[in-house]
Amino acid sequence: MNRIQIPDGSPFGPDNLPYGVFSVDGGGPRVGVRLGDSVIDLWALLGDEVFAAASLNPFMAQGPERWAAARERVRAALDGPVPDGAVHALRDVRLHLPVEIGDYVDFYASEHHAANLGRLFRPGSEPLLPNWKHLPVGYHGRAGTVVVSGTGVVRPCGQRKGPDEDAPDFGPTRRLDIEAELGFIVGAGSGLGQRIGIDDFAEHVFGAVLVNDWSARDLQAWEYVPLGPHLGKSFATSVSPWVVPLAALDAARVPLPGQDPRPLPYLRGGEDWGLDVELGVEWNGEEVSRPPYRDMYWSPAQMLAHMTANGATARTGDLFASGTISGPERGQRGSFIELSWGGSEPVTVKGEPRTFLEDGDEVRISATAPGPGGTRIGFGEVAGKVLPAV
Amino acid sequence: MNRIQIPDGSPFGPDNLPYGVFSVDGGGPRVGVRLGDSVIDLWALLGDEVFAAASLNPFMAQGPERWAAARERVRAALDGPVPDGAVHALRDVRLHLPVEIGDYVDFYASEHHAANLGRLFRPGSEPLLPNWKHLPVGYHGRAGTVVVSGTGVVRPCGQRKGPDEDAPDFGPTRRLDIEAELGFIVGAGSGLGQRIGIDDFAEHVFGAVLVNDWSARDLQAWEYVPLGPHLGKSFATSVSPWVVPLAALDAARVPLPGQDPRPLPYLRGGEDWGLDVELGVEWNGEEVSRPPYRDMYWSPAQMLAHMTANGATARTGDLFASGTISGPERGQRGSFIELSWGGSEPVTVKGEPRTFLEDGDEVRISATAPGPGGTRIGFGEVAGKVLPAV
Repeated sequence: MNRIQIPDGSPFGPDNLPYGVFSVDGGGPRVGVRLGDSVIDLWALLGDEVFAAASLNPFMAQGPERWAAARERVRAALDGPVPDGAVHALRDVRLHLPVEIGDYVDFYASEHHAANLGRLFRPGSEPLLPNWKHLPVGYHGRAGTVVVSGTGVVRPCGQRKGPDEDAPDFGPTRRLDIEAELGFIVGAGSGLGQRIGIDDFAEHVFGAVLVNDWSARDLQAWEYVPLGPHLGKSFATSVSPWVVPLAALDAARVPLPGQDPRPLPYLRGGEDWGLDVELGVEWNGEEVSRPPYRDMYWSPAQMLAHMTANGATARTGDLFASGTISGPERGQRGSFIELSWGGSEPVTVKGEPRTFLEDGDEVRISATAPGPGGTRIGFGEVAGKVLPAV
Repeated sequence: MNRIQIPDGSPFGPDNLPYGVFSVDGGGPRVGVRLGDSVIDLWALLGDEVFAAASLNPFMAQGPERWAAARERVRAALDGPVPDGAVHALRDVRLHLPVEIGDYVDFYASEHHAANLGRLFRPGSEPLLPNWKHLPVGYHGRAGTVVVSGTGVVRPCGQRKGPDEDAPDFGPTRRLDIEAELGFIVGAGSGLGQRIGIDDFAEHVFGAVLVNDWSARDLQAWEYVPLGPHLGKSFATSVSPWVVPLAALDAARVPLPGQDPRPLPYLRGGEDWGLDVELGVEWNGEEVSRPPYRDMYWSPAQMLAHMTANGATARTGDLFASGTISGPERGQRGSFIELSWGGSEPVTVKGEPRTFLEDGDEVRISATAPGPGGTRIGFGEVAGKVLPAV
């Protein structure tokens, strides 16, 4: 038995306890929680078979009462000495994709990001399209290419056509980018033809992850009319290995910055699911941006209510993400196309002027949020390295 | 033991043998094939555990050599008397969604359809956007709302805004429509970062289904810029219960109508996967359209090569569909927005002028294709009834 040491100031204290899936030395995957720099095997700790699983899905499907009860049991068990066999050092475990993803929807909920992209993709037009302030615009991404942090990202090929070229050619993207986002995992689903009301958010959403929605801007610019992004996005979306439970984000809740016009009734309420999460984006080890989630226009409760307003099923394991988080300042932009203004205003990284990603580049996104009593709640990092095109 | 009777002229003869998943009297689901008006339980016929499954996925994951071997074994076994316990009358079984869907991508591969929709959604502009003849345009749909034929379709609610209105309101769609499509099921997947070459289509695609991509045109028109269709489509997509194996469509292969400009090299070849499939669309029992698949601009081999050109994984169970099939004639249009020209030219159904779907309406899409020696290969119908909004 031992008592787990938590480094001073760790954002992975007993008020966080994010869930993940890990394995040790080629053993079967298990569900665990992170405490400090340790990973606790919940099957070994609690003896509950639902944690002897390759994903969080069986546990999440049990619903919000079981999530709350499990959190209490874990906290109680970790308050005293813990059996040695249930504890692993973080550095000794392999972390897996924590969730078997059902559908993946990506929103576009930052006004600053949507306006910046509007200026860059449709110069001379109104930056925001007429629908943007009436509904949280979003689209379905590719669930099968959601990967866990650390997975290498092969530079995608596709059709590229510049505005002055007559025809496209095919080759590796020249404008490989990131999008720093927050993602939400549906734990308890809904039936076909039902809606999830805006006040039922916490009954359905299990927790949050960091997301890097890698984007090939040249492929995207050429393909995206009229049916939206496809191959410019579908090659990889990275998520952090730790799912921060919604309960750990209570102290991070803030009002939204304000919505004008007032949303339609099905999108009213739920405004207190603004979240004061501060992200940091490192490019080859140098921090280049600090996107503030609290500035987002649409709340995740509004996203979920909208996504199911037409009766679409939500399933255990569905992922919906916020879209790029950008604040009003240059140093708060969550994509490199915005940071470098379409490549025209390079960013200095390790002394070099940079615009889009080069092979070998590494991007690391982290985040913290306020916890109880002045503590911080940490998200696991989402990191990835660019590999050369095949 | 009995010998299965096949009605004269049945498009479900021994050269077809489509696969489905069925259950009888509340028993567990099994994989079967259809022969005439009988369903053959493949687990009972062949004793292979892979067919004692709730979906075709385990069988499909075995790959093309096993698909070919199984087809030969089934044909040989059905050539003689069949054990009674392996045969059920079609009317006695319940048919289930045959595939556990991974990702669902919907293309837009009919030039007539894309041009018609361009004229209706963007009047006064060029009907086809500049990218359309360079790549098969497509987008991700919602996999979690793919349902089997016969499932009722609840009229979706959402934001509706007419061109002359200042702001949207929320309510049941007033322009509920269908899209008659052919869908292709990935049987053998590909790894992350790999591409599926255009000549490897049959190594990966297991078979084809009929698809009705239900669409709420008022929701779609308001929401679709700039990220594409979302709630206007995500409430339901119906598929036929029988997956026609690619091998059964050999005699249906035809050249594409012709592509100008010549596609980029990664989309060349595969043109002989044009398919002479004739669809019929019935609205409340009256045939209103006969969309010809042979007129499609892009082949399914080109769709798959494009979809994975950026290294996106394909997984067992992925569904990709053609988009609405429309021919050059009015009576060949595969959606009601085209048939009724945006509601301005009503269609006569059972003596009544009709534009979009009303509650209680039923739509039934069927199809056949040439088989060996003058036979026909049938697709299972995809049918659905409109239920009132909740």
